[in-house]
Amino acid sequence: MPEPTDTPDSTDPTSDSNADADDFTVTPYAVDGEIDYEKLLERFGADPLTDEQSRRFPDHPMLRRRIFYAGRDVDRYLEAAESGASHAIVTGRGPSGPMHLGHVLPLYLAKRFQQETGATVYVPLSDDEKYLAKDQSFESIGEHTRDNLRDVLAVGFDPERTRIVIDTADADVIYPIAVRLARFLTPATVEAVYGEQDTVGLQFYPAVQATHLLLPQLVAGRQPTLVPIAVDQDPHVRVCRDVAAKEALPVDKPGALLGRFLPSLDGPGKMSSSGDAPSIELTADPETITETIRTHAYTGGRATLAAHREHGGDPTVDVPFQYLRFFFEPDDERLARIAADYRAGELLSGDLKDLTIDRITAFLADHQRRRAALGPLEAELEPYRLTDDERRRALDRAGIPASDRA
Amino acid sequence: MPEPTDTPDSTDPTSDSNADADDFTVTPYAVDGEIDYEKLLERFGADPLTDEQSRRFPDHPMLRRRIFYAGRDVDRYLEAAESGASHAIVTGRGPSGPMHLGHVLPLYLAKRFQQETGATVYVPLSDDEKYLAKDQSFESIGEHTRDNLRDVLAVGFDPERTRIVIDTADADVIYPIAVRLARFLTPATVEAVYGEQDTVGLQFYPAVQATHLLLPQLVAGRQPTLVPIAVDQDPHVRVCRDVAAKEALPVDKPGALLGRFLPSLDGPGKMSSSGDAPSIELTADPETITETIRTHAYTGGRATLAAHREHGGDPTVDVPFQYLRFFFEPDDERLARIAADYRAGELLSGDLKDLTIDRITAFLADHQRRRAALGPLEAELEPYRLTDDERRRALDRAGIPASDRA
Repeated sequence: MPEPTDTPDSTDPTSDSNADADDFTVTPYAVDGEIDYEKLLERFGADPLTDEQSRRFPDHPMLRRRIFYAGRDVDRYLEAAESGASHAIVTGRGPSGPMHLGHVLPLYLAKRFQQETGATVYVPLSDDEKYLAKDQSFESIGEHTRDNLRDVLAVGFDPERTRIVIDTADADVIYPIAVRLARFLTPATVEAVYGEQDTVGLQFYPAVQATHLLLPQLVAGRQPTLVPIAVDQDPHVRVCRDVAAKEALPVDKPGALLGRFLPSLDGPGKMSSSGDAPSIELTADPETITETIRTHAYTGGRATLAAHREHGGDPTVDVPFQYLRFFFEPDDERLARIAADYRAGELLSGDLKDLTIDRITAFLADHQRRRAALGPLEAELEPYRLTDDERRRALDRAGIPASDRA
Repeated sequence: MPEPTDTPDSTDPTSDSNADADDFTVTPYAVDGEIDYEKLLERFGADPLTDEQSRRFPDHPMLRRRIFYAGRDVDRYLEAAESGASHAIVTGRGPSGPMHLGHVLPLYLAKRFQQETGATVYVPLSDDEKYLAKDQSFESIGEHTRDNLRDVLAVGFDPERTRIVIDTADADVIYPIAVRLARFLTPATVEAVYGEQDTVGLQFYPAVQATHLLLPQLVAGRQPTLVPIAVDQDPHVRVCRDVAAKEALPVDKPGALLGRFLPSLDGPGKMSSSGDAPSIELTADPETITETIRTHAYTGGRATLAAHREHGGDPTVDVPFQYLRFFFEPDDERLARIAADYRAGELLSGDLKDLTIDRITAFLADHQRRRAALGPLEAELEPYRLTDDERRRALDRAGIPASDRA
């Protein structure tokens, strides 16, 4: 189950899933079955966040409510953030289609961290991977890249502290570093972590991904780097950490902040634009949002109004409630009241849906307003791109001789 | 045997090797055993050159004497060269050490073709592959790259019709195109052609190599492209041809001109700087050349002076003679007279060595003179690099959307 805990601010990250604990698959390319989040940590070898660690992050519902519930090397990041030392966040995007809510929430979280502690944020767009992994033309991936870039820009990151990197457009930096890391990446490692790949491009891609995660340190020097991701993306971080440990580059292993999946509108599993479940795109208008949630959102309400009034609803499986909990109701008390009213049968499923519709509509209206205010893409993107000086420094630190850049 | 035919201008490219025909291995990474050149063509599926095809190439000992003895799609290239239509040659270099004679002869052949028919020559330097395949640091590969570039420049190509490409330095063009091709390259194909690879970098590299071979057409439009290479490099061409056939890019399959190995100084096998056999580096001074050939060159002479005078020597296995035949004695009549005199016992092994020493010394003196006259590398290289306009056009033709180059 994507959200197994039953109280909004529970500090228990464990799942009470009834499913066979081994009956699920999580890799960057497949999420099937019901997810046992604790089991995943064991399997991946990551650590649950302690209460203290959760509190030390900038205040945000996703931390308070243990949406992000685990991590790797979190303390080093927190120490840097608290002491004013350099620290970075990497949060990427694979541009294979329009972005939806599940894609943008981590970006807003990163923006919050940036505002609070001055984190440098790197946003790599893996157009190469998407071309290789999806049945789409390069042209189509390119259109999605342009479109997604507008959404990334609409988040409103500080251009002084944010770098947006596009694998094919920034290949001058990405590829040489990836080659350097690739020497330490065996086919066996990639197959063990990702499974068998169909093309040599996807076999190589983990080296590109590792490059993304080390880029902040290569551009601006050794610093704690945190990668906030859904737990299914942890293999990327582990591969990078292994490679970083083998290679004599002036970098530390990147850390990770691991999160649960935003539930799909129709229930368990992660929200996905490629599966059957409908998703809410960032460009959705209020009517579409309303229609989508009213028609498709899985509720924890009872079959009849009378039964609901008598027995109450179950917020732990109610997707509109979970949206509020993940992001859209930042006030813990108000969220607790909503949960209580729902359980008491006083709040109806339709009311809960309407509340969530209002919140998402307001959130997307703001996002869309900023997106619409953007000028031509190239000009808007320019202040977020790696400067020539930063490119040179990254290649220098990666030991790519200037001669090869003759 | 590297050179099985016994007359300088024999038109019979077949080998009379006594070795078990299957007892040899030829891949881009391994050449073992005695080479049956005809068997290789069968195995690789390439065509022997006809007399007519050999004659239609610019006059050069390597063609006349069937050092280059086979090919793929040779007619299309010849037609373009004869009609004045665009045509290109790709002849690369893997910068893992100093260049020696065996490396530079194909470059001089390409220069000859350029002078004669106006061929555009592309010289890709695969520093990425060498870093991945050799136990050397990136820094070391970078030094060899700089050094090798000076040798490539010393050949004296026409900068208007020549492009030198360095994989890491030109990754902005190379990588996106390689990704595009990589989608059509399965791990099974790469393993079948190259064997198992140790790193995901080498698994991906065939896509980079394929990019090299298609680059002339991507930069300047569809045109016959010929890749003159030792026959062991044919797998690269075959992989590229397969990929080119699958991908909807505006390119034709590149053709190949396949050659025998310049014999190693100590006899059979190809000249190699990585094996045990000594090799003649391009920077060798006259004393070193003399010493190396006198000490190490395998001769076809008899054990004693008397036996040699009585029975004569065997030029077909005599390495100094083969050097003359491959490149250093362009005059067929003179070469035939040398062979006859050697067979008759009138020309001694030492004399033959001295003659070859003189020729190589003169050749390298010219090369070294041009090399020494070069200015700073970056400035010298500049007119040979892809222009911004050429980069844009290559990416456009490869269908990499301008958006991704935002």
